[in-house]
Amino acid sequence: MLAAMCGVFGIYGHPEAANLTYLGLHALQHRGQEAAGIVTTEGRVLYSHRGEGLVHEVFNEAAIGRLPGHAAIGHTRYSTAGGGGLRNTQPFAFEYALGALAVAHNGNLTNAQELRAELEQKGAIFQSSSDTETLVHLIAHSPQRKVEDRIVDALLRVEGAYSLVFLTPDRLVAVRDPAGVRPLCVGRLRTPEQAYVVASEPTCFDLINASFERYLAPGEVFTVDARGARSSFPLPGRRPALCVFEYVYFARPDSMLGSASVYEVRKELGRRLAVEHPAEADLVLPVPDSGVPAALGYAEQMKLPFELGLIRSHYVGRTFIEPRQSIRHFGVRLKLNPVGDVLRGKRVVVVDDSIVRGTTSRKIVKMLRDAGAREVHVRISSPPTQWPCFYGIDTPTRGELIASTHTVAETVRYLTADSLGYLSREGLSQAVSAVSTPLSGGGAGLCDACFSGNYPIPIVEPAAPHRQLPLLQV
Amino acid sequence: MLAAMCGVFGIYGHPEAANLTYLGLHALQHRGQEAAGIVTTEGRVLYSHRGEGLVHEVFNEAAIGRLPGHAAIGHTRYSTAGGGGLRNTQPFAFEYALGALAVAHNGNLTNAQELRAELEQKGAIFQSSSDTETLVHLIAHSPQRKVEDRIVDALLRVEGAYSLVFLTPDRLVAVRDPAGVRPLCVGRLRTPEQAYVVASEPTCFDLINASFERYLAPGEVFTVDARGARSSFPLPGRRPALCVFEYVYFARPDSMLGSASVYEVRKELGRRLAVEHPAEADLVLPVPDSGVPAALGYAEQMKLPFELGLIRSHYVGRTFIEPRQSIRHFGVRLKLNPVGDVLRGKRVVVVDDSIVRGTTSRKIVKMLRDAGAREVHVRISSPPTQWPCFYGIDTPTRGELIASTHTVAETVRYLTADSLGYLSREGLSQAVSAVSTPLSGGGAGLCDACFSGNYPIPIVEPAAPHRQLPLLQV
Amino acid sequence: MLAAMCGVFGIYGHPEAANLTYLGLHALQHRGQEAAGIVTTEGRVLYSHRGEGLVHEVFNEAAIGRLPGHAAIGHTRYSTAGGGGLRNTQPFAFEYALGALAVAHNGNLTNAQELRAELEQKGAIFQSSSDTETLVHLIAHSPQRKVEDRIVDALLRVEGAYSLVFLTPDRLVAVRDPAGVRPLCVGRLRTPEQAYVVASEPTCFDLINASFERYLAPGEVFTVDARGARSSFPLPGRRPALCVFEYVYFARPDSMLGSASVYEVRKELGRRLAVEHPAEADLVLPVPDSGVPAALGYAEQMKLPFELGLIRSHYVGRTFIEPRQSIRHFGVRLKLNPVGDVLRGKRVVVVDDSIVRGTTSRKIVKMLRDAGAREVHVRISSPPTQWPCFYGIDTPTRGELIASTHTVAETVRYLTADSLGYLSREGLSQAVSAVSTPLSGGGAGLCDACFSGNYPIPIVEPAAPHRQLPLLQV
Amino acid sequence: MLAAMCGVFGIYGHPEAANLTYLGLHALQHRGQEAAGIVTTEGRVLYSHRGEGLVHEVFNEAAIGRLPGHAAIGHTRYSTAGGGGLRNTQPFAFEYALGALAVAHNGNLTNAQELRAELEQKGAIFQSSSDTETLVHLIAHSPQRKVEDRIVDALLRVEGAYSLVFLTPDRLVAVRDPAGVRPLCVGRLRTPEQAYVVASEPTCFDLINASFERYLAPGEVFTVDARGARSSFPLPGRRPALCVFEYVYFARPDSMLGSASVYEVRKELGRRLAVEHPAEADLVLPVPDSGVPAALGYAEQMKLPFELGLIRSHYVGRTFIEPRQSIRHFGVRLKLNPVGDVLRGKRVVVVDDSIVRGTTSRKIVKMLRDAGAREVHVRISSPPTQWPCFYGIDTPTRGELIASTHTVAETVRYLTADSLGYLSREGLSQAVSAVSTPLSGGGAGLCDACFSGNYPIPIVEPAAPHRQLPLLQV
Repeated sequence: MLAAMCGVFGIYGHPEAANLTYLGLHALQHRGQEAAGIVTTEGRVLYSHRGEGLVHEVFNEAAIGRLPGHAAIGHTRYSTAGGGGLRNTQPFAFEYALGALAVAHNGNLTNAQELRAELEQKGAIFQSSSDTETLVHLIAHSPQRKVEDRIVDALLRVEGAYSLVFLTPDRLVAVRDPAGVRPLCVGRLRTPEQAYVVASEPTCFDLINASFERYLAPGEVFTVDARGARSSFPLPGRRPALCVFEYVYFARPDSMLGSASVYEVRKELGRRLAVEHPAEADLVLPVPDSGVPAALGYAEQMKLPFELGLIRSHYVGRTFIEPRQSIRHFGVRLKLNPVGDVLRGKRVVVVDDSIVRGTTSRKIVKMLRDAGAREVHVRISSPPTQWPCFYGIDTPTRGELIASTHTVAETVRYLTADSLGYLSREGLSQAVSAVSTPLSGGGAGLCDACFSGNYPIPIVEPAAPHRQLPLLQV
Repeated sequence: MLAAMCGVFGIYGHPEAANLTYLGLHALQHRGQEAAGIVTTEGRVLYSHRGEGLVHEVFNEAAIGRLPGHAAIGHTRYSTAGGGGLRNTQPFAFEYALGALAVAHNGNLTNAQELRAELEQKGAIFQSSSDTETLVHLIAHSPQRKVEDRIVDALLRVEGAYSLVFLTPDRLVAVRDPAGVRPLCVGRLRTPEQAYVVASEPTCFDLINASFERYLAPGEVFTVDARGARSSFPLPGRRPALCVFEYVYFARPDSMLGSASVYEVRKELGRRLAVEHPAEADLVLPVPDSGVPAALGYAEQMKLPFELGLIRSHYVGRTFIEPRQSIRHFGVRLKLNPVGDVLRGKRVVVVDDSIVRGTTSRKIVKMLRDAGAREVHVRISSPPTQWPCFYGIDTPTRGELIASTHTVAETVRYLTADSLGYLSREGLSQAVSAVSTPLSGGGAGLCDACFSGNYPIPIVEPAAPHRQLPLLQV
Repeated sequence: MLAAMCGVFGIYGHPEAANLTYLGLHALQHRGQEAAGIVTTEGRVLYSHRGEGLVHEVFNEAAIGRLPGHAAIGHTRYSTAGGGGLRNTQPFAFEYALGALAVAHNGNLTNAQELRAELEQKGAIFQSSSDTETLVHLIAHSPQRKVEDRIVDALLRVEGAYSLVFLTPDRLVAVRDPAGVRPLCVGRLRTPEQAYVVASEPTCFDLINASFERYLAPGEVFTVDARGARSSFPLPGRRPALCVFEYVYFARPDSMLGSASVYEVRKELGRRLAVEHPAEADLVLPVPDSGVPAALGYAEQMKLPFELGLIRSHYVGRTFIEPRQSIRHFGVRLKLNPVGDVLRGKRVVVVDDSIVRGTTSRKIVKMLRDAGAREVHVRISSPPTQWPCFYGIDTPTRGELIASTHTVAETVRYLTADSLGYLSREGLSQAVSAVSTPLSGGGAGLCDACFSGNYPIPIVEPAAPHRQLPLLQV
Repeated sequence: MLAAMCGVFGIYGHPEAANLTYLGLHALQHRGQEAAGIVTTEGRVLYSHRGEGLVHEVFNEAAIGRLPGHAAIGHTRYSTAGGGGLRNTQPFAFEYALGALAVAHNGNLTNAQELRAELEQKGAIFQSSSDTETLVHLIAHSPQRKVEDRIVDALLRVEGAYSLVFLTPDRLVAVRDPAGVRPLCVGRLRTPEQAYVVASEPTCFDLINASFERYLAPGEVFTVDARGARSSFPLPGRRPALCVFEYVYFARPDSMLGSASVYEVRKELGRRLAVEHPAEADLVLPVPDSGVPAALGYAEQMKLPFELGLIRSHYVGRTFIEPRQSIRHFGVRLKLNPVGDVLRGKRVVVVDDSIVRGTTSRKIVKMLRDAGAREVHVRISSPPTQWPCFYGIDTPTRGELIASTHTVAETVRYLTADSLGYLSREGLSQAVSAVSTPLSGGGAGLCDACFSGNYPIPIVEPAAPHRQLPLLQV
């Protein structure tokens, strides 16, 4: 399982740790809607509650009430590549030689299968299909005497992208991988002052009345316990490579990522997209909600009217009963509906953040034309997605990525659009740099492997895979 | 109970009536998130399933599977004034002298208490606190031999606002009240051609691949059965008075209401608001989602940048566990979060559709200032709400409406805003007329009693109320 | 729907009325496992909670907590003839001209269809398929000014068997029909002393620490309110006719029915059965649990060993997943299993309380033979069931009653038994009289229509049935 | 956690393995009502479903449908000493070096803590508090190449009582510990003939139409795969010591244990008890249901009437809402109620299978006296329980066992009984031998440590306990 596009949260030093974690997970809900969990401690025992569904479905007052303590970690899960189910719901909590430990993970380890085979040879048993359990075994097998040292020992063995939060009865440990692929930031509560929070995105700090302090540096190990907070950098350095899709799509627009909000970066992506791929059109409309800021930027640059010409329904649940007879564009219509008299007779630019397989974009083009649009120009605020992600995003194989198998001209035909423009890799990089002091240090410091195929962290694929997973369906 | 701000749906002539009704209710979900129900018929028996929650929570495949037939009606409920619970969940289904009948209601009867007392004197029993049950008893007590005639008999007795859909084993009957306070429209399925749908808003027709035909006229009784569709106008005429709040807030922006979409009307409200109450500012931002079109119009008119400076979370469930310690602006923060670097140092105009008690607006102003806004100018795309609604909207009493107890200057102080501007009643009326051929015929044809106190339908309040309701809590 | 073989309970004057009712229903669970409900009052409002399932499945602490007050009534439902579902779950609670009223019913009205047609002609609506709703409408239509008077008015119109408990905000009213077909008894709490309870059987009084006072007399109307308890006899007298099956099968063996426990009566039935139908055998075994006392009596009379040669599983839920492949005697095996070495090579007498269709008895005979029994002699502690019950027991039609379509010799062959003996009607009557002062006054005072076809209360079947029910499936 | 008094089941070779396991667990429900689970395989993957509650609550058709395959194991759990919860629900399923493995366990390992500490030092992680997980780690750490060899390797390390069933994608392995403390038997399906079943008790074979073959011998390892069934005895021998309480209380009376049914043994216990402790009395009554056979034997020997003077309610759920005010004997009354007129004025012998703390027996004596019994003589069909069980029964510490802290005379006073008689250890042993060819070979072959303190398997308690468990609450 990829622990992809998840949200992690941790808190130390507040008497309502479970409740604040619950709120924090709520504000991270956009990073994962499939499952959620919280582990707390009062200094002696770890208490856990996990379940499948949205945060407010998994937790109620009774569940929160059974999670006492002043420290907690939480997780929201996005994807189920490789197996969902309760057993793959995080945080994982377990006992080992040093006592009890829990961990929540956002990212993906690229040598987990190889390590798993090796650990099984040493007698390890696995109850999930998650690479996080591999990490846990490495910690348990380390000869070190302190938990932080064991964590470092284990991380020295793994390759991949990870933002991790660990909880023991006496401390909270947060780690960002040396390339800093996934974000992880630190905040402080206003009361009590010595309470710390860590989270995938700072946007959740507002809700719990905490102030944003900073992002963890790539490779930083950040520990909080009764003596306070401290950092160390025990892992070998690597070129910073923050996932560019955090800017393009993942992060909530109100999150600060570097010196600017994601919202401002996305607007700049839209402006650059307009410079690179202007369109003769009457209006600009976004694919809501994620395409809104880029569309605003595009419209601003083009001096074209911005219109919310597609209305999104926010009440669509995870499961939906489809009618037996075929209904046109059903899957998309359920979430999006055009505003007919805004579109009728108009030449429209529709701005989206990315195209993966192309099927949804095709339905949107058709829907806009059916609603009366005279021309439909598709503009994408990122470069063509041509390579799969191995660092935690649930992408299909190369063969399923339309940008990998079709030229732009072919894609235009497939979409039945009048034109199609992707932002260039340079445009993307410049847009980020122009607006924001990059989060991860000098240079662009971004991972754009999905556009370029340049993977900053080695992908360790065993020549012969250990075994076909999963062997368990729980 | 007010059957306020609900959504109603009906279909006749499609073999998957339950499933299409389920989809239709989904597209009407914004009109009521508290409860939902469907009644179907295969020509002999009425089948019913109702529950509390969102449409996708109430229905699953098994439930839909137990609702056979070619005709159906459905309902989504918004408010619980006067008592919620399963017993007040619609459609109501019952047996009476002519067989079985079900009904779904959007609106409110203003003489229901009086009629209820009278009916109880005649031996009627009541199992709900809904005025819809009063209507049902009037139908059952009518001496007429045909169900449409009984419905008319009953409606001749009631005062108030109502969009109603009835279902019997052999027909579907839809009625819009003579003032046309609530909308109700007709559509036709593309296959089979003779299948009709009725719904509170046409937006749901797109999802089920039906075409919008027209709105029912005020006072129209529209019947569909095996012989086809027909209309009659047996109720005394009244001056048309479509609820102006359908334009301002209720309807989905992609719904056509009259000759224009609600989206276009709201943009025009924003433009007029800008003309009436311009502001020296750096940017315009909406209170999402409902304030977006008006803010776009305001920004367009003022030639100011439009920014999505407040981000809305769409994952907030109906119940939420509040932390015990007080957290600043908690209720609002959960749903809205500011984009700091868009606001910092800026003079902002924030556009919302209305102010009721003022508490939410006050929190938003505070939130914007905390995020760095230098000035906050509040603009409201409707006139001051000074009078309660008796036609189906769940408003507080006059004493709780801030516009009824505070001058604009006092309200500015309460909100801690820099300025406040409401759209004038004339501006509102002109905006609607300018953009849209009014739905309800000549003149503005709008009910603006909440702004003006001019109630177009008599409010019949018994000198001494029949009794204090409810006597039952089920 | 027949309100057949249900349990009713009522309490007035205890601050934990809901909780004691919950316990009382628990002790009446054997009278109905399909649904349960409680209505309480604190003197102003009626509070209701109902659901399908066992008492402990329907109620939890939260549900009990939402049922405040010092007075309550409760109901457990057995059968679903004519339609189950939540809408047919009792107590029924409703509002009418005099305020709020709730009712729970054990029995069956034999002219309900006729009255329903008449009431519908007067404008009544029906939301259930239960005859109890018919009664409720009669009460609502009565011109009387006091609720007891209205109840009497209504009961003067109905024919049938009924034990009823009514609750209003200020009183509890219990009524037993003039023939006293169903039992209903009165008890008093030890603290507070002025608190009264009524229930279908006295066995539930022990659990709530109440003392048994007496059975209500046939036709008695028993009222408890703030002034205390009082009785009246406003209904025309009828020959007492307590359902003989209460002795044979329904009542819990520890219940006193008349001057003796049901247990003692059943033992006497077994003794008489032995006198009438002795058997050359090695041992006597009951069909547990209901056949145990009669088997003890039979064994005692015959001086044969009593053995528990069939073991009953008590964990069988209401729903069960059957294997697709046929398994021999599956339905019975799930509940009963033979003790092989008790039976092997033995001539056994198996005692059961009745035979309805004969299918279960046939499986039991086969099971005993398969387990090694050399001879199987079936003895039934009641006469042949040849006539359907119209007074509240869910029996099949005459054509399905094996004793109505087969002679004893034919039945022996069908059962593949070695012999079969039913207790005679005289034996049954004498056994009851011998042990117990009959509950219902002089003479046997029993209804044995199911054996004799002598129906003590007229069966009013409309020449042409009003309509085929149900028209609603909710 | 003790895996105490659980039921285990396994099947190999039937296309509806999950369904038959579900039925088998149903028939083993008396061995554990707290949780249940099934793991199946179709030859490649292990499929698992587990949950807390009764078998029919944990499984429905959908759950069974998601468990494909021809082989399965199942488990019902009784106690929660040391921690319940889903994580301690069996079967455990996991992956390790040889692939996937699942296990279900009835019994208790007496050196699990010591082994756990050792395993944790080697890097093992623990997700449950069960000793079964310790066993699993031993298997995973074994250097052997075949799963049976690894199982044997692991069992050579553990001390304690265990009946185990293992499942891999290609085989079923069942093991009974060398002392044979817990029962485990083999059966064969009638169709298909080559299909085998194993179960804690043979009583479940009847339900699935399988024939009882034999009990596994102590120490036997029984394997079934595509080639058929085979046995081996790789573990060092030990003196047979079948838990005597299987005869006294655990097993279902219709189960064959040795050459006789448990029912016959219990009757003989009652007869011997009568010889050892006769009573001048009018009647004998059991504490139902477990005391029935011994009471029948006692009554037969004493030539006293047997009466079912206490009626048991079988509808009591696991959770129960207690009234706030104290109600006399509440906990017992809920399950048991006396038949007043059987007891009134009588000298009664009440027969139960054991006394643990004495509190329940005390309430029963009080209940019988309150119901009118003139004298109450308590007879126990087993010796005084003076020592805790370490082999899988959830007993309290010595200090809480009334027979360990009170003499018989003191106990009589505590119970407020007129007399008390326990069956002697010799009587118990002779009764078992008299009726049944002992299951476990020569001599009595029974473990009676709870009566004698003679523990047949060493109790390994670490001088300093590894750590206080649990560290996790999941």
